[in-house]
Amino acid sequence: MDDLDWDLYGAGCPTREVLDRIGDRWTVLVVLTLAEGPMRYSELSARVQGISQKMLTQTLRALERDGLATRTVFAQVPPRVEYELTEMGRTLLIPLGAIADWATGHMDNVRAARAAFDKA
Amino acid sequence: MDDLDWDLYGAGCPTREVLDRIGDRWTVLVVLTLAEGPMRYSELSARVQGISQKMLTQTLRALERDGLATRTVFAQVPPRVEYELTEMGRTLLIPLGAIADWATGHMDNVRAARAAFDKA
Repeated sequence: MDDLDWDLYGAGCPTREVLDRIGDRWTVLVVLTLAEGPMRYSELSARVQGISQKMLTQTLRALERDGLATRTVFAQVPPRVEYELTEMGRTLLIPLGAIADWATGHMDNVRAARAAFDKA
Repeated sequence: MDDLDWDLYGAGCPTREVLDRIGDRWTVLVVLTLAEGPMRYSELSARVQGISQKMLTQTLRALERDGLATRTVFAQVPPRVEYELTEMGRTLLIPLGAIADWATGHMDNVRAARAAFDKA
């Protein structure tokens, strides 16, 4: 099955699951944070405010499994663990950045639309 | 609160919820399908294969509430109901199209990465 065979509109297409993963709020925030360079778990945890340890661990593991980030353990005491985007992971920065910009740029309009809808 | 105050990285920022909504697989697929023009519910249901009636109804209602799509009822028998992207909804086409292209374009690499990860 080559690229041309993937059809997002087809019921069983696995691209849908990938779409869910990359569109997930935590994935977007973690990937965009990692855009700055390799980072430790604790630093990511501090930067992406409100993310639970469980969710950060899950998100990083999924990114690693999908080939979007690497996890490197440095043999020192205590061990240092760093996460870094792969080359493929970096290709996500443009689309995810565009989504994040859309969300922040249109938030006021979305809120106004909701208020009008809920009043009707 | 103006645009500049929205901070996706802040724990309580409502933009995160909007981010989840627009990154949802069904929102992406419905919005990209509506890019072609106004469409009836039944047509959307046929085009976005595998979407349940419940999920399509929820997705359309959320798009309507967020000001991204309109729902127009034409007074005829039986009534015809059409959905159409708003001007704001159309601004989503570029970021969501980029996400969809990424998903289909990188699916092979993601699959290969997963196979390698699961084997390790």
